[in-house]
Amino acid sequence: MIKLGVLGLGTVGSGVYEIVKYRSDMLKKATGEDIEIAKILVRDSSKDRGLDVAEGVMTENPDDILDNPEIDIVVEVMGGIDKAYSYIVRALKAGKHVVTANKAVISLHMEELHKLAEENNCGLLYEASVAGGIPIIKNLKEILKINKVDDIKGILNGTTNFILTKMYDEDLSFEEALSLAHKYGYAEADPTDDVEGYDAARKISILASLAYGTHASIDDVLCYGITSIRTIDVVEFKKMGFVPKLLGCSTRRDNSFSAIVEPILVEENSMFASVKDAFNLVDVLGDNLGELEFYGKGAGKEPTGNAVVMDIIDIILKNYSEFKFEVDKSISSDKGNLFTGLHYLRVSVDREEDKAAVVEKLNASGVQCKYKELERDIIIVTERISSNRIEKLAKEDLGLAKKTFAYLRIESESLVSIDQLNI
Amino acid sequence: MIKLGVLGLGTVGSGVYEIVKYRSDMLKKATGEDIEIAKILVRDSSKDRGLDVAEGVMTENPDDILDNPEIDIVVEVMGGIDKAYSYIVRALKAGKHVVTANKAVISLHMEELHKLAEENNCGLLYEASVAGGIPIIKNLKEILKINKVDDIKGILNGTTNFILTKMYDEDLSFEEALSLAHKYGYAEADPTDDVEGYDAARKISILASLAYGTHASIDDVLCYGITSIRTIDVVEFKKMGFVPKLLGCSTRRDNSFSAIVEPILVEENSMFASVKDAFNLVDVLGDNLGELEFYGKGAGKEPTGNAVVMDIIDIILKNYSEFKFEVDKSISSDKGNLFTGLHYLRVSVDREEDKAAVVEKLNASGVQCKYKELERDIIIVTERISSNRIEKLAKEDLGLAKKTFAYLRIESESLVSIDQLNI
Repeated sequence: MIKLGVLGLGTVGSGVYEIVKYRSDMLKKATGEDIEIAKILVRDSSKDRGLDVAEGVMTENPDDILDNPEIDIVVEVMGGIDKAYSYIVRALKAGKHVVTANKAVISLHMEELHKLAEENNCGLLYEASVAGGIPIIKNLKEILKINKVDDIKGILNGTTNFILTKMYDEDLSFEEALSLAHKYGYAEADPTDDVEGYDAARKISILASLAYGTHASIDDVLCYGITSIRTIDVVEFKKMGFVPKLLGCSTRRDNSFSAIVEPILVEENSMFASVKDAFNLVDVLGDNLGELEFYGKGAGKEPTGNAVVMDIIDIILKNYSEFKFEVDKSISSDKGNLFTGLHYLRVSVDREEDKAAVVEKLNASGVQCKYKELERDIIIVTERISSNRIEKLAKEDLGLAKKTFAYLRIESESLVSIDQLNI
Repeated sequence: MIKLGVLGLGTVGSGVYEIVKYRSDMLKKATGEDIEIAKILVRDSSKDRGLDVAEGVMTENPDDILDNPEIDIVVEVMGGIDKAYSYIVRALKAGKHVVTANKAVISLHMEELHKLAEENNCGLLYEASVAGGIPIIKNLKEILKINKVDDIKGILNGTTNFILTKMYDEDLSFEEALSLAHKYGYAEADPTDDVEGYDAARKISILASLAYGTHASIDDVLCYGITSIRTIDVVEFKKMGFVPKLLGCSTRRDNSFSAIVEPILVEENSMFASVKDAFNLVDVLGDNLGELEFYGKGAGKEPTGNAVVMDIIDIILKNYSEFKFEVDKSISSDKGNLFTGLHYLRVSVDREEDKAAVVEKLNASGVQCKYKELERDIIIVTERISSNRIEKLAKEDLGLAKKTFAYLRIESESLVSIDQLNI
């Protein structure tokens, strides 16, 4: 008998509860063990959750789980950072295995937590922290056994993919699409984490850390959101045959890596372009096996609950011991320098006569580009430059104020020079 | 020290050889063992293969491997059916684990071979037999631990996907595209297995067998190839916004399943449509986790070699014991009855005046449809009917001779009635 202590009973926690309860036969077959949820930490145990939880299982006291010698595995699905982190630390120090869905905690503390898990002979798994139902972490670990992985990129945030899909397919403005995302429950009350790219940044930092054997912290991830993309941009994207997607990307060359979250223009008949609504897609490039892509639901009760329970199974089967997170201190972040590409840049001006000044500065910048002037906007496509250079071009060379511009890297295998492009 | 005996040193065998040889450190780290290729069975040991194989490792005598008590794992990558099958049986009976890339043997004999493996406490893994570098079998087994999987579909054959891509993107005829596939090494000298769908049928039969716990033999798979698709069809597909793809599909309802390989029309902005050239994509629908898709290289030395070596690692780590292939005799094949959809049907006639007879028979068939007459062809779209019914319509109701028609099921979430369609 394996006893679980579950911290939190929100969306993911309910999913875990239902799978463990209603699929006990399958779990027994997969692990050889009976699995029981012995305790669930909730904020208010009197609240009716529509779940048939037995008397005495819910508790408001974390000690009932963390100090409970009967509990083998602690499942952290409460969210938040500081409290969740301290509970995970306590659980590991008490010799309990930990399964968590908490990308914020893992992204911040993975190096320390893995060390703690190892010292205490415990498993620490967090499949559900990246891309919900997609088993990307387990597959990445498998791939890494006999592949060097330098490049990872993915649509890692369902909320922004939903918004961009609506903006592109149904010509909604960013604000209209965001409001629809709220209506469908895809966006949080405060959508900052999603639309500014911070959520995706945590996820790509976790994947990059595993792939490179370094702790890529969220501070190493350049992060641009999608809030500056306007309807006028979408019109231009369509003319050029591109679809905007918020991608988390990481790449390594020698002992440097770059990680970034930014809106990218992908070709309209590409795999990434076909990912609609709240789905996720992760692309991993292994040096033996080439490109491998994983597509599925990036969030939701059942898919994320499924990921958590798969981790529980692997803990019981001791599959966690096959992968050891080892830190290579010689690898360091090179910010956005390793990412280069043609870039789309739209600059908006208040008055038509302000455009000349922008064009003058553009010419003085030394960056080759093509541009066309619209009534109150200038649409620019630059030569191949780095992600750092486009940022400098917009903010320093052109001296643009926030909200007056948007830029996106163009990812295209066929397009290598601005000469090929008619804008 | 783990000693491997490798049967065959063709494309896949060379890939395995190179990974085992040049990634020995990674393999040691992943398994804790030194791994050595002790013997390789070849037809002609004097042939120069450009591989640096040590003296005495190559042999032309299978007994050197199958009767060799030092060999722990037999890796069958020789292809063919009867000989490969008999060697696998001998290896298992001798208590050796078996890793094979042989879809023909597994598709035919998986039930018996799994039984034999179990009786002899051996592992039997065959990741490379389906979709090359994509770890679909391992992931499917993982998903099945806590999901019921009723539906699987995939682009499982790179050769036909290459041909269809060239026909659609570059307006080549089937014959021109096939000749290009030969030129690039994507097609065998005799392409029958690929273009008639038999290769994909073996693969979907293996996946269906695992998902349903039955032995779906290749005889249970309805199989239509792509040889009847003509340029005139591709023109019509484009007008309707569809892309033709050869899909292997299996579905289950209650205790019946249907498995089929057939060209299907998918929407032009769908994931399947974006799979180009020789890539594969497999879609699995789990009842907890929803849709999960896996994309990657379906063939080639490195990707397939990678899949074989991953199996070797899992044998060493004893991961094979987590999945037991159990046969449920209550599940039986219902041919193509479980697949239904609108169908595209093109009928070609020798003389313009023959069209009237076709239209008359069509009206008499009782199948609702829309049609338009071209010079020597009739383009028909039927109401939702089963895969068995469309076959009967073409062959019996219309009495069409082979080579005078082509039909494709239309897979579209938005299109449910022929009234929506303008042909």
